[in-house]
Amino acid sequence: MRATYMYGAGDVRVIDVPDPVVQHPTDALVRVVRSCVCGSDLHPYHNMPVSEQGESMGHEFVGVVEDVGSEVRTVGKGDFVIAPFAWSDGTCDFCREGLQTSCRHGGFWNAGDVRGGQAEAVRVPLADGTLVPVPVEEKSPLVPSLLTLSDVYGTGYHAAVKARVTADTTVTVIGDGAVGLLGVLSARQLGAPRIILMGRHKERTDLGREFGATDVVAERGAEGVAAVRELTRGDGTHVVIEAVGHMPAYEQALGVVRPGGVISRVGLPQYNNAPVGWDLFGPNITLTGGPAPARAYIETLLPAVLDGTVDPGRVFDTELSLDAAPDAYRAMDDRRSLKVLLRA
Amino acid sequence: MRATYMYGAGDVRVIDVPDPVVQHPTDALVRVVRSCVCGSDLHPYHNMPVSEQGESMGHEFVGVVEDVGSEVRTVGKGDFVIAPFAWSDGTCDFCREGLQTSCRHGGFWNAGDVRGGQAEAVRVPLADGTLVPVPVEEKSPLVPSLLTLSDVYGTGYHAAVKARVTADTTVTVIGDGAVGLLGVLSARQLGAPRIILMGRHKERTDLGREFGATDVVAERGAEGVAAVRELTRGDGTHVVIEAVGHMPAYEQALGVVRPGGVISRVGLPQYNNAPVGWDLFGPNITLTGGPAPARAYIETLLPAVLDGTVDPGRVFDTELSLDAAPDAYRAMDDRRSLKVLLRA
Repeated sequence: MRATYMYGAGDVRVIDVPDPVVQHPTDALVRVVRSCVCGSDLHPYHNMPVSEQGESMGHEFVGVVEDVGSEVRTVGKGDFVIAPFAWSDGTCDFCREGLQTSCRHGGFWNAGDVRGGQAEAVRVPLADGTLVPVPVEEKSPLVPSLLTLSDVYGTGYHAAVKARVTADTTVTVIGDGAVGLLGVLSARQLGAPRIILMGRHKERTDLGREFGATDVVAERGAEGVAAVRELTRGDGTHVVIEAVGHMPAYEQALGVVRPGGVISRVGLPQYNNAPVGWDLFGPNITLTGGPAPARAYIETLLPAVLDGTVDPGRVFDTELSLDAAPDAYRAMDDRRSLKVLLRA
Repeated sequence: MRATYMYGAGDVRVIDVPDPVVQHPTDALVRVVRSCVCGSDLHPYHNMPVSEQGESMGHEFVGVVEDVGSEVRTVGKGDFVIAPFAWSDGTCDFCREGLQTSCRHGGFWNAGDVRGGQAEAVRVPLADGTLVPVPVEEKSPLVPSLLTLSDVYGTGYHAAVKARVTADTTVTVIGDGAVGLLGVLSARQLGAPRIILMGRHKERTDLGREFGATDVVAERGAEGVAAVRELTRGDGTHVVIEAVGHMPAYEQALGVVRPGGVISRVGLPQYNNAPVGWDLFGPNITLTGGPAPARAYIETLLPAVLDGTVDPGRVFDTELSLDAAPDAYRAMDDRRSLKVLLRA
């Protein structure tokens, strides 16, 4: 089959690899219907050291079950399924607490002998805990929105949930990528009355307004902070969703959060050390977030997707064939595309 | 009157200064009955640059109101009062939210023209918002416990509240100083079934056991982390109260917190940058805490102090006269005293 591998910064190739097969009784084999490129895939695209064997890519996909191991009970051949971006047993204490990213027996795609979703098919470990069957046809127009439940929608929602967004909290979202925009949608769904979106790309921030942003601040750095402060009587907002992962976004978050507020990070931090001294401690700011247990939110978010109340799939502005994956990375890296859907 | 000033690292003097007087209609003048030295006072005691005019010291005191300005309504001459470690108007939005340390019109002792509590008397700004009258005599044996409501008890409680300690959370407390020990007491009051106290001073950790610690770990660093992990089936605890403020304590906190858990800092950070990359982000750890709005907790904590259910004043193991304040600093710095009460 065809699968996407990265061999170093900027070097993405779609190659032939052996077809995956069911190896364990708890595995499922999923034929991929749609996968996509994630903002976090751009981090290795910028800085991955050259690798001869390459790294399998992709952690977001929906597809159709082709085969299952003897112990799989909750999905079967022919089911359309959503695969969240971590696989998990669904039964351990962390899974029961909704922290499937810390599952005692789970893991991430593209690690060990588990391969990625930017491919024609994937072997899914612990299929019962991991996959969520959805009663739709693979040709359904809902497929892009369902795919966002793999990662970006769940991640935006996770940011808002960890920050405890309610109808009483004002929110700033830093970043107009897919996660930031779906952070806006999530904050809106949780009732936030004021959502300030910080982003420079008008097409994206326009979509952000449709998702629920009440204000847009295009400036960055000190100017951006001043603009948010001006919109909030000098105070900043109760919640800041940081959906970028770079240090300037962290600093911006510190600049626009209200005393007693929360910075919720869901952009993979591209730094190790950050200022957490008096600037964070003095005003009693809470720093939270992490990789989203997307699996935990699928059942919660699914109904509004299925009945058309929300259309998170609008973050996909480009669709390419799997073989064009290198173009997809380039288009996202150049900011020509917000998020690219790959047709397997 | 006599008042304590610091003139540089290790240089504490008790000097004569003009008697404070009511300056504003919202001021109260409080004759200090008892004050004390705080673990956080030891930070400048270690590293304050030499200063010719010196810095007024002390942010914890109880006393008797001697005079009030014309607009003061809630306290009057002769009232025994507790002064929390920040002064605040009690009416702004932050005060109403219980974040008096961020009061729009308040501030901290020993800043601007507001002097400190290690003195015979203190001018208290915004007396209505700041002071809490308590129906006790100044000779009451409850005075030491009431004094802990100025800071250390409220600070330990703040750590536990910010970490959302409940009957379902296991807790590690790092630090066997007064705040750490009262963090133990607070976690116990909030129902924590398991409280592991990390500290090396047997007398202090023994008191910690009486306050509710179920386990004591004397080791520090990697050994201490391993010991806590062993006590928790390898997982660490849901909550870590970090009551020290030095980087090794932060690192220890990262080492013993369970995935999805909370590190709650109430030791004043003696660092600016700290690791908050994958180690914090990956397991979805929340970092919270800050200077305690002690004022917010006095009414909550007072009844159990008044009826003798708890005796937080046991953290005071030494009492000296105000003129011996330099000895008090030395005794605490040498770890000969846990916390020193000063008799004004």
